[in-house]
Amino acid sequence: METQSSRKHRAMLDAAEQLFLRDGYLATNMDELAALSRVSKQTIYTHFGSKEALFVELVSSMTTVAGDAVHWEAMEPTRADELAPFLEEYAERQLATVLAPRLLSLRRLVIGEVGRFPDLAQALFDNGPRRAMGNFADLFGRLAARGLLTITNAETAASSFNWLVMGAPLNEAMLLGDTAAPSPDEQRAHVAEAVRIFLASHRS
Amino acid sequence: METQSSRKHRAMLDAAEQLFLRDGYLATNMDELAALSRVSKQTIYTHFGSKEALFVELVSSMTTVAGDAVHWEAMEPTRADELAPFLEEYAERQLATVLAPRLLSLRRLVIGEVGRFPDLAQALFDNGPRRAMGNFADLFGRLAARGLLTITNAETAASSFNWLVMGAPLNEAMLLGDTAAPSPDEQRAHVAEAVRIFLASHRS
Repeated sequence: METQSSRKHRAMLDAAEQLFLRDGYLATNMDELAALSRVSKQTIYTHFGSKEALFVELVSSMTTVAGDAVHWEAMEPTRADELAPFLEEYAERQLATVLAPRLLSLRRLVIGEVGRFPDLAQALFDNGPRRAMGNFADLFGRLAARGLLTITNAETAASSFNWLVMGAPLNEAMLLGDTAAPSPDEQRAHVAEAVRIFLASHRS
Repeated sequence: METQSSRKHRAMLDAAEQLFLRDGYLATNMDELAALSRVSKQTIYTHFGSKEALFVELVSSMTTVAGDAVHWEAMEPTRADELAPFLEEYAERQLATVLAPRLLSLRRLVIGEVGRFPDLAQALFDNGPRRAMGNFADLFGRLAARGLLTITNAETAASSFNWLVMGAPLNEAMLLGDTAAPSPDEQRAHVAEAVRIFLASHRS
């Protein structure tokens, strides 16, 4: 059963997401945040300690949830002809997660505030790209052990695959806004080409 | 001969670079900017019209200069064994330009302000990745015409190559700060692997 305290906690985080992503860190008004959460400003400070600590909690919670969403229990390939469809589905899941508009907004905000809050950007990196690339590296290690791929360095291969998939759509979305994100069909075509390039250069 | 007016113009842009990159757009103080430029605040407004217009001019001038710096008149490969060294040198030039600390700061600032100033981010994209990818696409088209590469779509190949090279170092630098930028030796090793992957997947 959700307690009144955890309901309030969630309401404050929801309001923080709405206002920080809309107005940025500096311009977010704590009176407005209190009103939107239907709590007193004192309650926010009692709960989180400071505006900064609330921002940290927001970034940490949004990126952890997104990282969990990519996690995927699927049968891994045992034959060479299963590689492409498997990697395509995996990469499409990850791309769709990262291109969610609220995560793009969060990423822009955190990048813009990296000078003031380096730890936040580090948390986003650790929960985001670093976690994703760690999972790819583990996977490529297993596929190499099965003789399905030739991998000299699993971390390097994971980074290459990650940025082949994420580089273009993520950086376009960062600079050109959410509406520049590719359509589902374009995402599929993009991922298929990324997988083709990766497999052509890491074949057994 | 440089006129007094163009000297002032340059002094104001230099001061704008220093303060906008250090403090962000909102927190940049126009009185401080005037003092640092050794002109009156009125002179800044007479020259640029507004704080916003000064910011636009700064982004446009910095990204144009950086794009010009990558431009490179070199003999293009006519034999297959010349491809890798040529592409490596080209990519190393581009990577070193994009990873310059002041351009990384500018990119963070522009990404953080994309909600308020979408045109700025568009200008950075056009002068940055779009211009670089256009040059790659033209190059790959010529190399394919010479029978040195198999290219189905020159724009797609250019995007793949660009993000294989730029994706990891640029996105790490965005989130982890300038000190996360790879060393020259790491940049060379990274570029060599990017070129290897690209050539393995686009061979004739």
